This record gives sequence, C-alpha cells and structure tokens, in this order.
Amino acid sequence: MSNAVKDQGLIFVVSAPSGTGKSTICRRLLAACPDLEFSVSHTSRPPRPGEADGRDYCFISRADFEERIALGEFVEWVENYGNLYGTSVKAIDAVLARGKDLLLDIEPRGARAIKERYPDAVFVFILPPSRDELLKRLEKRGHESAKVIQERFAQAERELREVLWYDYAVFNEDLEAAVLQTIAVYRAEKCKVSRLRGAIDLFF
Amino acid sequence: MSNAVKDQGLIFVVSAPSGTGKSTICRRLLAACPDLEFSVSHTSRPPRPGEADGRDYCFISRADFEERIALGEFVEWVENYGNLYGTSVKAIDAVLARGKDLLLDIEPRGARAIKERYPDAVFVFILPPSRDELLKRLEKRGHESAKVIQERFAQAERELREVLWYDYAVFNEDLEAAVLQTIAVYRAEKCKVSRLRGAIDLFF
Repeated sequence: MSNAVKDQGLIFVVSAPSGTGKSTICRRLLAACPDLEFSVSHTSRPPRPGEADGRDYCFISRADFEERIALGEFVEWVENYGNLYGTSVKAIDAVLARGKDLLLDIEPRGARAIKERYPDAVFVFILPPSRDELLKRLEKRGHESAKVIQERFAQAERELREVLWYDYAVFNEDLEAAVLQTIAVYRAEKCKVSRLRGAIDLFF
Repeated sequence: MSNAVKDQGLIFVVSAPSGTGKSTICRRLLAACPDLEFSVSHTSRPPRPGEADGRDYCFISRADFEERIALGEFVEWVENYGNLYGTSVKAIDAVLARGKDLLLDIEPRGARAIKERYPDAVFVFILPPSRDELLKRLEKRGHESAKVIQERFAQAERELREVLWYDYAVFNEDLEAAVLQTIAVYRAEKCKVSRLRGAIDLFF
C-alpha cells in the first residue's frame, strides 16, 4: 500500500474510575494488538516503586510541567491530588505519523479534550459490575488510607456518569470477557469503512 | 435485568459478492456468538442437494411467494436468476422479541431496504483481497458454466461499489483473520453505549 492512500492511525481512548481493572485491560490489549502503542503521559508526581521513566510516565518537575503548559504542549492536563498529569500533542502526532495506533489511558475530563482535538478518536469506558463492587475493589487495594479510598470512590461516582458520551462501555464483571470485548472494539474500529477509505480506493 | 430496561436485539447484516467466503464467515460467526441467530430467508427456488427447509431457506412455491409480497410480508425481496428471495418481517421481529440478535446474509439491494426499516442495524461488507482474486475464486467453484461465472463476476463488480455506504468492511485475504474481524465487529457493536442504555440505567 502506498503512502498516498495509507489510512490514518487510530486514537483509542480508555477511561475508567480507579479499581475498575483498566490497567490490566490496557496491558492485555497492547499485547494482543501489535499496531497499537501506549501513549506515555507526562506527570509531575514522583515515580512509585517499579515505575520507569518513559514507560509508565515521563516524569518531569513541576516547574518543567508548568512551562510546557504555557507553551501549549499538552492537549489536556489535569491536577489530581496535587500532581500534574498531561498528554503531549507532539507525542501523539509522532506515533500517528509512524502509521501506528495510539492507546490513551486517560480520565474523562482529559478524554473530552482529546475528543475536541481529535474527533475521530474512539472512546471506551470500563465499568465495574456495580457501584458496590467498585467500593469493594477500592478497599481491597490496601495501600491507601480510608480517607483516600472515600475520596477516590466519590470521584469514581462522578466519573461514572461520563460514560454516557463515550462510544463504548465494557462492564468488567469477568476480566477475560472484558479484555475480549475491548480488543473487539479496537479490531472493529479498524474495519470501519470510514477508516478504510485508502484501502477501499486501492481496491477499485 | 428486568424486561423494562432490556436492551433491544441487534440486526447484523453481512453482504458480499459470490465467492468471497461469506457463508463460511457467517457460519463461524454464529458458532462463536450464541446470542446471534441466523435469519432464514424465503425463496421460490428449489432446494439444492444438502439444503434443508427452514434451515438454509424456507422453500415456498412461486405462487405462495407472490401472495406474500402482495401482503407486504417481506421487508425486502429480489428476483435473482429467475428465483425469488425475500426476508420476512415477521421472522425478524419474532427473533428480536425473544431478546436475540439476528444475522442477515443478504445482498446490497436487500440490505438497503433493511437499513430503511431498521436504521440501527449494523452493515458489514466482506471484500475479496482483490478483483482478480474474486474472479479466480468464482472460476474455482466449478459447478457453474463460464457464462454464469461471467454474469456473477459482473454482478459482483456492481455490488462491490456498495461497500461505501456500509458501516464495516472486512477484507477476506486470510479466512481466520476475516472471521476474527467479523466476530469483533459483532462484539464491539454489543458494547456501544447507544445499545446499552438499559444496562447503564440499571447501573446508576
């Protein structure tokens, strides 16, 4: 296929409240789909044990982060629990320019900003089986205080309402089923006629 | 889930010119998706060896078929090579009323009629890898005369243009990949927020 008719890469946005299994689902999605690359966000928070710079996040100082905001480098950014998180336009465009698809693991406010800038992006919301189950999962994580858990649950409840403007919802009742559904959404979007115009033009 | 909020069944339409592997793909799709049922068309043509009434088609006489046309029983019907083929509204509605999804294996003219009556239906077009490959496949089938093959190829070329108004296109270059893609489209459509309003309302 010549570059002239190459269909453009896909931006695949996955959102979910904490404790919904989003990270696991995203990891499995990436493993199954070689054309899909993970978008590494920038953050001003310090790395947690086991996190690597450039893989989990690009860890930068708060001063550096604020300078990049002023330069318009982030399509979206947010302050969460005192830390800044943002998605770099340059990073997105670099992946798409290589003809790859991009996975963004991002919360609903950021997802809205992505939708404004990239209207063809695909938006998937991972839901827990129920609100009770979500609270149980947050409590089980164990490394947070009760106050932090309550704050996260309250934020999760607000975020859940955002599912209504997403394209797809995946209920994570059974992890294997949720992984299969998320992979199916990605594969199906790659078959949309509106995304295959280059390949279809070549056919005729 | 109560009946009041039960999300409606999905109509999944698959079209493809002869020789594109559509029948195999549909069979594999049905085997993988227990909520999806095959819609059995009516036809006035006599059964071929191995075909069973009520499974492959509902075989009826031409007179009976024409009477049903007059009664408005078919959402679409077509005369092909002297035989009538049609899709019964009653048959569609009976499956959806049972909460099941329906697979329609139908050519583009019929698919258009389905789209007018059921705008939420999903339309998938199976494409051969290339036009040359399509002609080769038609020739390999062996049980048709050269004239019939040429007619089918000419019709296939006309039909291929119809892909542009479909929702999804699946290139059948590799059968396994094409089967996976078609299953993915069905699974993804079941995750559309617009189709899950009942389940999502229940969640809140």
